Amino acid sequence: MAQANTFGKVLTITTFGESHGGGVGVILDGCPPRLPISSDAIQKELDRRRPGQSRLTTPRNEADQVEILSGVFEGQSLGTPIAMMVRNRDARPSSYTHLRDVYRPSHADFTYDAKYGIRAWHGGGRASARETIGRVAAGAIARQILTALCGAQVVAWVQSVHAIEADAINPLQVTEAQVEVTPTRCPDPAAAKAMEEAIDNARRAQDSLGGVVSCCVQGIPAGLGEPVFDKLEAELGRAMLSIPASKGFEIGSGFAGTRMRGSEHNDPFVPGPNDQPITTTNYSGGVQGGISNGQPILFRVAFKPTGTISQAQTTVTKDNQATTLEAQGRHDPCVLPRAVPIVEAMSCLVLADHLLRQRTVNVL
Amino acid sequence: MAQANTFGKVLTITTFGESHGGGVGVILDGCPPRLPISSDAIQKELDRRRPGQSRLTTPRNEADQVEILSGVFEGQSLGTPIAMMVRNRDARPSSYTHLRDVYRPSHADFTYDAKYGIRAWHGGGRASARETIGRVAAGAIARQILTALCGAQVVAWVQSVHAIEADAINPLQVTEAQVEVTPTRCPDPAAAKAMEEAIDNARRAQDSLGGVVSCCVQGIPAGLGEPVFDKLEAELGRAMLSIPASKGFEIGSGFAGTRMRGSEHNDPFVPGPNDQPITTTNYSGGVQGGISNGQPILFRVAFKPTGTISQAQTTVTKDNQATTLEAQGRHDPCVLPRAVPIVEAMSCLVLADHLLRQRTVNVL
Amino acid sequence: MAQANTFGKVLTITTFGESHGGGVGVILDGCPPRLPISSDAIQKELDRRRPGQSRLTTPRNEADQVEILSGVFEGQSLGTPIAMMVRNRDARPSSYTHLRDVYRPSHADFTYDAKYGIRAWHGGGRASARETIGRVAAGAIARQILTALCGAQVVAWVQSVHAIEADAINPLQVTEAQVEVTPTRCPDPAAAKAMEEAIDNARRAQDSLGGVVSCCVQGIPAGLGEPVFDKLEAELGRAMLSIPASKGFEIGSGFAGTRMRGSEHNDPFVPGPNDQPITTTNYSGGVQGGISNGQPILFRVAFKPTGTISQAQTTVTKDNQATTLEAQGRHDPCVLPRAVPIVEAMSCLVLADHLLRQRTVNVL
Amino acid sequence: MAQANTFGKVLTITTFGESHGGGVGVILDGCPPRLPISSDAIQKELDRRRPGQSRLTTPRNEADQVEILSGVFEGQSLGTPIAMMVRNRDARPSSYTHLRDVYRPSHADFTYDAKYGIRAWHGGGRASARETIGRVAAGAIARQILTALCGAQVVAWVQSVHAIEADAINPLQVTEAQVEVTPTRCPDPAAAKAMEEAIDNARRAQDSLGGVVSCCVQGIPAGLGEPVFDKLEAELGRAMLSIPASKGFEIGSGFAGTRMRGSEHNDPFVPGPNDQPITTTNYSGGVQGGISNGQPILFRVAFKPTGTISQAQTTVTKDNQATTLEAQGRHDPCVLPRAVPIVEAMSCLVLADHLLRQRTVNVL
Repeated sequence: MAQANTFGKVLTITTFGESHGGGVGVILDGCPPRLPISSDAIQKELDRRRPGQSRLTTPRNEADQVEILSGVFEGQSLGTPIAMMVRNRDARPSSYTHLRDVYRPSHADFTYDAKYGIRAWHGGGRASARETIGRVAAGAIARQILTALCGAQVVAWVQSVHAIEADAINPLQVTEAQVEVTPTRCPDPAAAKAMEEAIDNARRAQDSLGGVVSCCVQGIPAGLGEPVFDKLEAELGRAMLSIPASKGFEIGSGFAGTRMRGSEHNDPFVPGPNDQPITTTNYSGGVQGGISNGQPILFRVAFKPTGTISQAQTTVTKDNQATTLEAQGRHDPCVLPRAVPIVEAMSCLVLADHLLRQRTVNVL
Repeated sequence: MAQANTFGKVLTITTFGESHGGGVGVILDGCPPRLPISSDAIQKELDRRRPGQSRLTTPRNEADQVEILSGVFEGQSLGTPIAMMVRNRDARPSSYTHLRDVYRPSHADFTYDAKYGIRAWHGGGRASARETIGRVAAGAIARQILTALCGAQVVAWVQSVHAIEADAINPLQVTEAQVEVTPTRCPDPAAAKAMEEAIDNARRAQDSLGGVVSCCVQGIPAGLGEPVFDKLEAELGRAMLSIPASKGFEIGSGFAGTRMRGSEHNDPFVPGPNDQPITTTNYSGGVQGGISNGQPILFRVAFKPTGTISQAQTTVTKDNQATTLEAQGRHDPCVLPRAVPIVEAMSCLVLADHLLRQRTVNVL
Repeated sequence: MAQANTFGKVLTITTFGESHGGGVGVILDGCPPRLPISSDAIQKELDRRRPGQSRLTTPRNEADQVEILSGVFEGQSLGTPIAMMVRNRDARPSSYTHLRDVYRPSHADFTYDAKYGIRAWHGGGRASARETIGRVAAGAIARQILTALCGAQVVAWVQSVHAIEADAINPLQVTEAQVEVTPTRCPDPAAAKAMEEAIDNARRAQDSLGGVVSCCVQGIPAGLGEPVFDKLEAELGRAMLSIPASKGFEIGSGFAGTRMRGSEHNDPFVPGPNDQPITTTNYSGGVQGGISNGQPILFRVAFKPTGTISQAQTTVTKDNQATTLEAQGRHDPCVLPRAVPIVEAMSCLVLADHLLRQRTVNVL
Repeated sequence: MAQANTFGKVLTITTFGESHGGGVGVILDGCPPRLPISSDAIQKELDRRRPGQSRLTTPRNEADQVEILSGVFEGQSLGTPIAMMVRNRDARPSSYTHLRDVYRPSHADFTYDAKYGIRAWHGGGRASARETIGRVAAGAIARQILTALCGAQVVAWVQSVHAIEADAINPLQVTEAQVEVTPTRCPDPAAAKAMEEAIDNARRAQDSLGGVVSCCVQGIPAGLGEPVFDKLEAELGRAMLSIPASKGFEIGSGFAGTRMRGSEHNDPFVPGPNDQPITTTNYSGGVQGGISNGQPILFRVAFKPTGTISQAQTTVTKDNQATTLEAQGRHDPCVLPRAVPIVEAMSCLVLADHLLRQRTVNVL
């Protein structure tokens, strides 16, 4: 209720769709008119998100071909709602029959029933990662808005998987090409290889792994974000924590920064180009007082190990009886590689929204 | 713009006020009618937040006496907007004169100018912690809503200051009385004492410290929160990251959980009372798929060391010239103790909002 | 922008689609779970709205078959977004080629160009009445919510066409069957016949006619609507004035009531059943102080004569040059008959939204 | 609930206050920074609205002196929320004692009780016209935004009182000075005199009168308003129908236009200046397809006769017992003169909001 499936204020998305219904999709509203809309660019992002990319991801086979239903005319945005849809093709409701009356641990099965008193048990329903298809499609257009209006670059990558941390990374220099070169989407080749093995081992052990995605945004002008509730970190945090399986968010120095002194943590200003100061350190992560300061925006998102595992697990039935859950549906042993395009999409949506919002501030 | 000073959907707050204008305050809209409104309960929370409580906090002396302007009649809420105001009394704009043209490092001075082209340099303006007065006043009423509708208890405390971690705490058993007994608001007496010394040392060293606030909510029924963008962790995260000086948020296992395997991290269900399952562990932090599962909701918020320090600092003027900033206004050497009631207030507001929202779901 | 294609607060619709793109549709969010969803009931309303029903309506031939894409499971609502789509089948973009560079008088061609700098000239784009398909589909579900929660009945009809007024109508006794029996949707048989002739004559004269739709809602409990900006008449008025071609709205005594004295106009209260008063007159139209009083809600909506006519008209080109416009696309000579289900749909959406909103008020 | 006391999307107001509590006021959010804010200009509008202006209005004596609490610094807007408050001074709760348990006919007494189960019976509470003080104060600033950004002029006047119609008015030439010269705010001197007598007679007869306010807005550029739900007429209509005592709204030809043929009603375009067409008639009232076309925006609002009259009236008690209501509180025998500044204020708020919203559209 209360527009719970809508995100953003000026540039908004409303997503729809269960994992095993007719399809999933999104309405993007507030896209400025006359923006060239490339369905190839949208499809490219969906391809980065889609299942079945490698043995590290779920074997569910979905082409996830996007159809643009409205809002685009002769290759340009009309300024009206852009509706996009992806059909569910490889749905196998029958493989979920055993889940009809059993609650998977650390899944949304029980909580959906508690909330709604009904649940689309043919798969994860709305809690499925398929819901993020609409976000990624819309995020691809938001990225085009950022490019057109300020040239900002948004790059995310897998920073850690389980205990494997990618140490050899300069966040300001990671490129999309470096990210895409490995199936783990970790731009540190040695760490990427270790992560790949770890994920493969977890899969064979019928287990799953979590990790951290880092994101760096460059080219955002100073002045975006709002002072109080819509601080840029609050908006980015909400966006990231709305991604399935995320459990934490930190910007700039984050939790580690709590162990610094103010005299270490404060980012000294020095004169910079275009009559604006720059900072010599960036513990602020590009945001001060909720508003971008022109420095790179840096944040990290924690993802828990996938809830779906094939091992036998203690749980209860819908009737509150103890039971053991064994086989389950297709799943990713580690969501991190596929989370990368989702993190980028949500970042683009937040930032493009604020870029447009700022147009209503600078009017006099 | 775009209601950037409004928070919530059914139960909403809109705050106003600069640190050195006529006053600060809030409109709370959507409060159910016929709720007994105790101005004492509101004032009690404001007293926990106000400056000058101890030598650990800023010496600015504000009684922060709340005036209820509307929405309450004969001791009960009317269902109409409850406006509450606190006058600024101990404002000393003259002590900010030297900050008119200088940007304090890691403050919002530069970013406000970049955003608005104007800034209330008589103090921190809207970026001042005084803005949170309205949140705390409204949060006190939200707490009364929670009490009336589900009896939920919200307790936050200082978990760490700089390197001092309060290890001897069982989050499920912390009481408000334990929290309030020390000026640090850390319920672990040994840690509290160490924190107090550390803060005092930092103050003497003209420096500042950060830390982590933990929060535990008990008594929230299963079913609150929304599946996609308004996941409970996303709403709590946004709320916490909108508090000045916060840099990170994690729920349940958080960042540490990324180093666990799914088989360890999944919370096994066992049959519980009232025909609902309970979990034997709580790595989920009381939220699964964005929806409360009836277990305690546990989260942590990272606060950076206070940006205002009295040491000389490298910075620039408004004209982008290098300069050194020395003396500054009154400030807290560590915001953590006063952050506790703010964290609680924002938690109460999020949860009361979702409690009311759920009333529109369970209607058939 | 700013969710301009979204309507409602707790029960919301977001519509998408141009008249000649891939399709038109809607996302209905906030529908309570476990509501039986009858696609027949939805299709029935769409059939009332669709073109080609009789010679009084546009010859464009669209079956307007609805597809439910999400939010429904085994015949019941899930509580998640219900996306519905209708494909555009009988689109004939080529018949609009001559309109590419010419502005039709009293259409949205010029204003769209002024707003967006681009326009889907293959038909009316988003200004086409096809946009209302999503509203009607969602309205059919809103009607089911009203039926389930309070048994309210919403009936609209054609009150006048041009100078022909249907005088022999008791608004409280009009039934849907009476409305549907004639192609004009006027339940006064004599007036209906005269209207039919008038519309036919206008069509033959290459001209168009306007008129008034009346609506009567019975069974709404006292207490819906909000005191200030969301007064029930304000919400209904906005809803009606958002329908293409509407130019006016009045509730209860409306404009005629401005010529009454207070002593005549005030509705006397007398004791009624269920410990609630009733009124002996109903100049208030069922709403007092913005809130329903339990009496029938009565309002009227003015629709201008269709802008599209086949006569030659003076106008300008996109380049601001004088020209004459002759032939145009397919159109209705009078929108009134097809406006009836749209008025009902928007009424159902407003009232179901407020019915759900009231659930958050009565909680103590 | 659901922000029912908030209006607007980018430029928003949230009002608070009962007629007999501590005060009434408003938070205006989204005002662009660096706008000169003249408290004299705000007070001037409040003075036009305040009671006790003449014998035509209620004798309640309120200076309605505004206090700006926040958001303004050294005479300029900060871009942060502007909170404004007016204290209730001449409140006489004791004169309402007899209304504690009796429902005034055609007032909000019963409906408030039905909605909330509680009512501030010390006066009209939130249904009092005092609630509009916040709107008028904020509207004065919105007018300054319009002046600064597009030079638009908003002028409203009393078009009719009871059966007296002001015929000798050219809407395009009415000036504020002409409106303010008589206590009726009717710029047709003969009609003004007749209205004054009629109102005076009604007052003496312990009765009340209604009427129509007309409004003309000139200088709004083409392109404001949104195609679907936020059509300019829908937004203006909602705004007007949210004013206490309003019962109808029509734009351009309105209800009368339903008796015209399309060939008469369509507004022919001819080439105009600045490469934009103009229309030779204006039955559209300046809005086509929901979007302004650059012509004057013309609309009319119906106000019922004041509900409060001093004659004995049939009604019921709170316990649903028949009774007779005699004496009542202070009131206006005709709300029309004081409605004029409220209509203007709401118009300014709608148009300034859309002017800012359009800044997010024209970005490429």
